[in-house]
Amino acid sequence: MSVVVQNIERADQSVIDRLAVCGVATVHEAQGRKGLLASYMRPIYTGARLAASAITISAPPGDNWMLHVAIEQIRPGDILLLAPTSPCEDGYFGDLLATSASARGCRGLVIDAGVRDVADLTAMRFPVWSRAVFAQGTVKETLGSVNVPVVCAGAYVRPGDVIVADDDGVCVVLREEAEAVAKKAEARMAAEDDKRKRLAAGELGLDIYDMRGRLAEKGLKYI
Amino acid sequence: MSVVVQNIERADQSVIDRLAVCGVATVHEAQGRKGLLASYMRPIYTGARLAASAITISAPPGDNWMLHVAIEQIRPGDILLLAPTSPCEDGYFGDLLATSASARGCRGLVIDAGVRDVADLTAMRFPVWSRAVFAQGTVKETLGSVNVPVVCAGAYVRPGDVIVADDDGVCVVLREEAEAVAKKAEARMAAEDDKRKRLAAGELGLDIYDMRGRLAEKGLKYI
Amino acid sequence: MSVVVQNIERADQSVIDRLAVCGVATVHEAQGRKGLLASYMRPIYTGARLAASAITISAPPGDNWMLHVAIEQIRPGDILLLAPTSPCEDGYFGDLLATSASARGCRGLVIDAGVRDVADLTAMRFPVWSRAVFAQGTVKETLGSVNVPVVCAGAYVRPGDVIVADDDGVCVVLREEAEAVAKKAEARMAAEDDKRKRLAAGELGLDIYDMRGRLAEKGLKYI
Amino acid sequence: MSVVVQNIERADQSVIDRLAVCGVATVHEAQGRKGLLASYMRPIYTGARLAASAITISAPPGDNWMLHVAIEQIRPGDILLLAPTSPCEDGYFGDLLATSASARGCRGLVIDAGVRDVADLTAMRFPVWSRAVFAQGTVKETLGSVNVPVVCAGAYVRPGDVIVADDDGVCVVLREEAEAVAKKAEARMAAEDDKRKRLAAGELGLDIYDMRGRLAEKGLKYI
Amino acid sequence: MSVVVQNIERADQSVIDRLAVCGVATVHEAQGRKGLLASYMRPIYTGARLAASAITISAPPGDNWMLHVAIEQIRPGDILLLAPTSPCEDGYFGDLLATSASARGCRGLVIDAGVRDVADLTAMRFPVWSRAVFAQGTVKETLGSVNVPVVCAGAYVRPGDVIVADDDGVCVVLREEAEAVAKKAEARMAAEDDKRKRLAAGELGLDIYDMRGRLAEKGLKYI
Amino acid sequence: MSVVVQNIERADQSVIDRLAVCGVATVHEAQGRKGLLASYMRPIYTGARLAASAITISAPPGDNWMLHVAIEQIRPGDILLLAPTSPCEDGYFGDLLATSASARGCRGLVIDAGVRDVADLTAMRFPVWSRAVFAQGTVKETLGSVNVPVVCAGAYVRPGDVIVADDDGVCVVLREEAEAVAKKAEARMAAEDDKRKRLAAGELGLDIYDMRGRLAEKGLKYI
Repeated sequence: MSVVVQNIERADQSVIDRLAVCGVATVHEAQGRKGLLASYMRPIYTGARLAASAITISAPPGDNWMLHVAIEQIRPGDILLLAPTSPCEDGYFGDLLATSASARGCRGLVIDAGVRDVADLTAMRFPVWSRAVFAQGTVKETLGSVNVPVVCAGAYVRPGDVIVADDDGVCVVLREEAEAVAKKAEARMAAEDDKRKRLAAGELGLDIYDMRGRLAEKGLKYI
Repeated sequence: MSVVVQNIERADQSVIDRLAVCGVATVHEAQGRKGLLASYMRPIYTGARLAASAITISAPPGDNWMLHVAIEQIRPGDILLLAPTSPCEDGYFGDLLATSASARGCRGLVIDAGVRDVADLTAMRFPVWSRAVFAQGTVKETLGSVNVPVVCAGAYVRPGDVIVADDDGVCVVLREEAEAVAKKAEARMAAEDDKRKRLAAGELGLDIYDMRGRLAEKGLKYI
Repeated sequence: MSVVVQNIERADQSVIDRLAVCGVATVHEAQGRKGLLASYMRPIYTGARLAASAITISAPPGDNWMLHVAIEQIRPGDILLLAPTSPCEDGYFGDLLATSASARGCRGLVIDAGVRDVADLTAMRFPVWSRAVFAQGTVKETLGSVNVPVVCAGAYVRPGDVIVADDDGVCVVLREEAEAVAKKAEARMAAEDDKRKRLAAGELGLDIYDMRGRLAEKGLKYI
Repeated sequence: MSVVVQNIERADQSVIDRLAVCGVATVHEAQGRKGLLASYMRPIYTGARLAASAITISAPPGDNWMLHVAIEQIRPGDILLLAPTSPCEDGYFGDLLATSASARGCRGLVIDAGVRDVADLTAMRFPVWSRAVFAQGTVKETLGSVNVPVVCAGAYVRPGDVIVADDDGVCVVLREEAEAVAKKAEARMAAEDDKRKRLAAGELGLDIYDMRGRLAEKGLKYI
Repeated sequence: MSVVVQNIERADQSVIDRLAVCGVATVHEAQGRKGLLASYMRPIYTGARLAASAITISAPPGDNWMLHVAIEQIRPGDILLLAPTSPCEDGYFGDLLATSASARGCRGLVIDAGVRDVADLTAMRFPVWSRAVFAQGTVKETLGSVNVPVVCAGAYVRPGDVIVADDDGVCVVLREEAEAVAKKAEARMAAEDDKRKRLAAGELGLDIYDMRGRLAEKGLKYI
Repeated sequence: MSVVVQNIERADQSVIDRLAVCGVATVHEAQGRKGLLASYMRPIYTGARLAASAITISAPPGDNWMLHVAIEQIRPGDILLLAPTSPCEDGYFGDLLATSASARGCRGLVIDAGVRDVADLTAMRFPVWSRAVFAQGTVKETLGSVNVPVVCAGAYVRPGDVIVADDDGVCVVLREEAEAVAKKAEARMAAEDDKRKRLAAGELGLDIYDMRGRLAEKGLKYI
């Protein structure tokens, strides 16, 4: 059955914005090393960093009809996230859809498939994380669903979950855990500041983290 | 048999230049969604966009001898296109060959294999779309052919066919269809301009393309 | 057995610096087309070019403990080179480790696995050549070894061997051959300068390298 | 947090057995073309066909400790299903673990990683669907979880969901949908029997499914 | 434009049968080392060896409608060959289609995508060479074409060209070259018989092919 | 420089035969989890298990000349092991070379490239572990070396090192460690026999290996 779920829960916007500041690697660690999408999901240009609520899309291979449907569901601060129902790298999305999504307040796109018009998207600063850049066109014949749970690039994403994305890739945070994760991530950043200074001054991680004893105990030999 | 075909037909230069303006995604759509090379063919630097007549090269794996032969066949406005006879990612081409090709008026290289000296090629603004960046050297021992039809990255290319390439990848246009495709591509661009304005103003594709009825008919449920 | 070898031999620093000037493609050719790491080893940003002595690390999949151990072994002018004991793309290394390594005079990292915090590493101009960019965190539970011979991305590397890396990828030079290779690479560069001028002036490689006779003899037909 | 969930719900055994009879392709179609694991999940020998309740395992890369924990949770008719927390093809499982699992009534293993001792497993007729065959050993240092939801080879699997597997691959059925899916799958098989006879007699799908009109309407031309 | 070409030329059946006897490796060599499909095209069971005339199919990703259309075009001794218009591994073909195709005299299937029901197909001895085994279902919404030239797994195939397939993979022979290739292939086989006997008796290829002088001349050193 | 090293050291034949009995997984564990070739190295048929001394071959891509040279160096009980100098999947080896190698007492082939005539090789019971099955022919134009150290599928192999291969893949044992590894592997097998009996009787690994305390200490929660 193909459905569009119109009212989804989202995390608090201020929490989402705090997650954006922390970035993917820190958020991933803060929530117990879970939620990463596969490493093949790469940004089309470097330097974008954001967090946003996911509008999820389950779409057939080579059919981008549901993107038009999904765009109507966007609220400012959302991000589109598309998972094909079987592996596909076709170019589901280009500059016209980006123009439309931007007009609705969309912050970007995460797609386990292809994207095209990347020169235009880069000029517009519309960030995309994708499996491929591919001009291959798609059709509009078969239904999918919008705002249902999907598996995208190996991660389980529900509508309204928080997507954090930067040059390191993409991470999903459960919307109900967003605040707790933001707190832990911020604490982690604060702790790292101190360590960064000590490491920059030449102290060794071996000493800062007190590793020498345990290494010897495990049997490490210096020769 | 190894041959060099010296007189090939090319499309009209003014038509080729019009195709360059349209770009890969638009040209691909305009000619009925055909002609794309595989998505693994990526540019060594972003921002290049061109169209040119193909000088095709069929070369053995790890042997770049035929590139020297092909360069003599270049006329200003041509592009080299190399397909190895079995999968190979060796670095067939570097800055010396680019210097030579440029001196003959060559616009770039499409190679279903590797390329090297990419920092130099980027500095020279000699555009390359390749399967790999790899410094692996090649030999000059075994013949291939120049200006014969080849399959390059999944696309069938004949000498003199028009190659369109940009950040989205590479597309081939049959030389005898070049003018008709250019017209359709330009018409498509004009039509997109209008749609882009309406989408930017917040109109939805669902309405512009009148999709709601057909979606309902196919069974899409809003919940 | 897990070991840290503390005193390793290195090539002469002036020789290492000469190899950096030559770059990967030239050094690879000069030493007889050997020593390249696989083409999937890509830089996290373009434009870095260096040569350095390898501090080698053999580490379990998903465990970056040995990086802390290895950093203590760095002398100014070294580079870290990590090979996992089975295929892994986890993010073993990020900005804190880069800060620590930099404080010890480290010139960069070559890792047949993943790296994270690439925006920070780019801002720091800490160069990394890796198989993947991936935020996936690692543990510190299982020993590996430092400064033992490893196979990294298909190349055999011993501690103290010279790593040359640039936008074309990564090459290893045996430390005892470094001087001889530098000489040959420099000779090659000098010879290329002359050829580059002639090619830029429009002379053909077919003539400069006197290939026409041998091509005919092998049976190449012009039609 | 690492947990072992000890009491999980399972589908009715008789329903599970009916799903085994239907096989992967039919079950996948019957439940609306969802639930397939990626095509890289291949059986270690041909001819096995089964359905079973999933004991799910989330395990670190290169660490098979949780398999020992999971085996205690097996009830007769279950299958082990392991998803690593980052991509890994190490050989987590071999003949000793298979002996232990068999003694508990385990029907097989689905693992998005590697398996070893495949000659022994084949001789034992212990079926395994895996991403790789690889002898690489693992450690027992880091915790994971047992009987928590996982994403395995692109499919979301909860403990107690029904796994159907045969030479075509692996499919997951939600335990609460198992009975409805079995019914639809059986109906599908019955309908296929009739069609198979007509097709074997030389009738065409074009006629049986009444496709000619719609093909013409879409514009198909016979030339 | 979507078309079905109904009258295609085929090679002589007796020639086709002679090519089947020679097998893929010999035919590929006999025709000058061309025509091989990519190595990822593997048989679903070992031991099949055939030659047949290609009924070619160009189909959209995830849409198997054109297979029904193509089956009507089969004459006894033909083989179906499907190339998707963008990369796809969905299961376009299963036991019902095989039943229908067999009833028309079809010898097998070559598909640069997925196949399912492989246990049934194996029991039927209906040979398939495919990119993947995958149960993923397809739709019947978008037209493609039948009996037009396609690029399949890297090889250019025209309708009526001869497909040779065995455990080594798949090779295409131009229908107009089929007889000449068969002769060369048979001559090659005859010559190999003699060599096989001499090699089995312990003579070395170095001597039979008189390689020692040329090896020395090229600089090979025995140490 | 291209060389053929004619006198290489080998491990004792009785030790080699003992390693064959142990198999890949056990030998790999016994020598400290090192020496495995990549998991993509697969046997062309199941059921072969052997150990043999390596005759190593470094060959250019697409050039099998050195195989003829290497066959002369075979002594009964050896195995050929070929590593191309850049990635290649061409079919370097087929039934004629197998006939010749067999006549010299060769036990099989390990090749990080392609092999062809696999139906014949299977009928001959000539075992091959390869990266690909591919009929693509090769040339005899460029020298390589025989009996020099190579990196093959990620493992460093010296001439005379012991290759162990079975359905799990391929492992290399340093010839000077062969006896010690055989002893450890045999001890491991003996120890496994006891464990296998206890596991078959229903005892849990958790108890046999006394894991419960350490799991609790690490924080595993049963819920």
